[in-house]
Amino acid sequence: MPVPTIQWIDRKIRLIDQTQLPEKLAFLDIDNIEDLAEAMRQLKVRGAPAIGVAAALGVALAAQQFSDQDRKTFQASIQETISYLSATRPTAVNLFWALDRMQDVLTRNQESEVHLIRQILEKEALSIFEEDRHICREMGRYGAELIPDNAAVMTHCNAGGLATADYGTALGVIYSAAGSGKKLHVYATETRPLLQGSRLTAWELQESKIDVTIICDSAAGMVMRQKKIDGVIVGADRIAANGDTANKIGTYTLAVLAEKHHIPFYVVAPRSTFDLEIEDETGIPIEIRSKNEVVAGFGRQTGPENVAVYNPAFDVTPHELVTAFVTEKGVLKPPFDEAIAGMLRS
Amino acid sequence: MPVPTIQWIDRKIRLIDQTQLPEKLAFLDIDNIEDLAEAMRQLKVRGAPAIGVAAALGVALAAQQFSDQDRKTFQASIQETISYLSATRPTAVNLFWALDRMQDVLTRNQESEVHLIRQILEKEALSIFEEDRHICREMGRYGAELIPDNAAVMTHCNAGGLATADYGTALGVIYSAAGSGKKLHVYATETRPLLQGSRLTAWELQESKIDVTIICDSAAGMVMRQKKIDGVIVGADRIAANGDTANKIGTYTLAVLAEKHHIPFYVVAPRSTFDLEIEDETGIPIEIRSKNEVVAGFGRQTGPENVAVYNPAFDVTPHELVTAFVTEKGVLKPPFDEAIAGMLRS
Repeated sequence: MPVPTIQWIDRKIRLIDQTQLPEKLAFLDIDNIEDLAEAMRQLKVRGAPAIGVAAALGVALAAQQFSDQDRKTFQASIQETISYLSATRPTAVNLFWALDRMQDVLTRNQESEVHLIRQILEKEALSIFEEDRHICREMGRYGAELIPDNAAVMTHCNAGGLATADYGTALGVIYSAAGSGKKLHVYATETRPLLQGSRLTAWELQESKIDVTIICDSAAGMVMRQKKIDGVIVGADRIAANGDTANKIGTYTLAVLAEKHHIPFYVVAPRSTFDLEIEDETGIPIEIRSKNEVVAGFGRQTGPENVAVYNPAFDVTPHELVTAFVTEKGVLKPPFDEAIAGMLRS
Repeated sequence: MPVPTIQWIDRKIRLIDQTQLPEKLAFLDIDNIEDLAEAMRQLKVRGAPAIGVAAALGVALAAQQFSDQDRKTFQASIQETISYLSATRPTAVNLFWALDRMQDVLTRNQESEVHLIRQILEKEALSIFEEDRHICREMGRYGAELIPDNAAVMTHCNAGGLATADYGTALGVIYSAAGSGKKLHVYATETRPLLQGSRLTAWELQESKIDVTIICDSAAGMVMRQKKIDGVIVGADRIAANGDTANKIGTYTLAVLAEKHHIPFYVVAPRSTFDLEIEDETGIPIEIRSKNEVVAGFGRQTGPENVAVYNPAFDVTPHELVTAFVTEKGVLKPPFDEAIAGMLRS
């Protein structure tokens, strides 16, 4: 079920160009930082864990690109790369978490030779990559216990293999439950404006032979009212210390609908998505993206010229609407502030 | 502010082809019933009151088309036209209401000469047309009182001039409030899959110099949580005797969000949208439309091949989520069953 979202081949980054799915499974070979940053900004690679992994590999790539510089210049170049990559996307904290780890390694080894630092940075990036695989499996294992046999589950955006280095966060739970023999049906919201639900989630579920039905985002209310849904399961881009959760725009709407219909609402995210430095939702920066994603997205002008468009890429679901968080350390239940602090200490 | 959505010119129907907006303001001249039915099915003309008017004019058109038939054949042809047009769209009751009026006129005049029946049918269709203009103005007048100065109002789909023979139901209220000097800001949900919000509502509001911001449907929750919205105002396709309201898919989701955020939720609809024969939501037929609207809508394949798509065109908002109905007879408040029955008797 994992798809080769990100690979490290011949010391280059190979990405699935997710903007071309589902029409075409195309790969991008990236050998410089500018192309990587552009791929991140254009969401050719996206999903909180995946952009963390991609950024870490980006630093490893830079270490190679700059390996004939003297030590001081090399360190400055790596530093600059870290700043440059951290400016690509503001909301998902995994990006900063991964870059912080690369920064720590750089700082700890600043007295080493350039070729050694290069090796150490590559090793750290590959650790982050490998850990993400392991973490996905652990989250899948814990989360699967929450999903009954014959359940219908709604998910939003893509929190699957295409959003991680392995088989996903929210979809990882579904893959794990399906792998243990449960029969599941997934309702994938198409997820405007960029349609990650219909383009990516439906594609990877279909590839994995899991029943999937696409609905428009706005049909979620009707489908829940029809009692078709047993649980909502989503990923996250950043989770504050109290459990307030930033995720793809529309997640909050689903959480309100789930509350109204007494449906459990699960957030699946690794420890690296939790940000204890942010107390609650007020501290989470929300990326506002181009109006063209909404009114000129798929080959046609679908809004009048010069119209105002408000296009936040994320929203925040307040912690009281979350039933539980699924992490690689287990399932967290309320009160979340204590549970989160405890998990991060463990 | 009214747009020439439907015209009766030289005994032909001239329609704005709404599928081409906002890129192009194109007109369709229709001189036969088959083309009219096709335009209705393809939503070239849409909106509950507008399809009622279009269908009535369609019967007038047929009366002309068949006017050299003998009386018996003519009456059978008109009968057949009525059945044929009534099969184009199942949910909006205005269609059946308008066709019933045409049927009544036919029945009452079955002893008359063909050329007389033709004239009487044309007169009745033009009455329905003219009444719709008057009704829009009355709804606008009553509804405007509910909208405070400097309000921000959210609307869904298009319940404007393009959905009626005049300036609309929900948007009529906004035009009326703006006309009385109030400053308003409208948040238009884009309304997937066919984007009537961004293509039509934003276009006609912009034409009328009313501030409008397009948002993705799924952003409605976030925008309400940001306390940007003072009221939600929508049209309707069919309202049951107890006030349960069928309207464009996504309306129910907005109603749940409005309840959660303590925002009033208004439905604006003429008497002809109320259907006393239907007790509650369980009796309202919901049109399910093609999956291609969702996954192959705008020039690109946005879902995988052979994927399942659930594409209901409408949902039902239960009456308890409606703050008030605005009709041409005044504003109806709960208990709605009594208020609706009273209004329909008046």
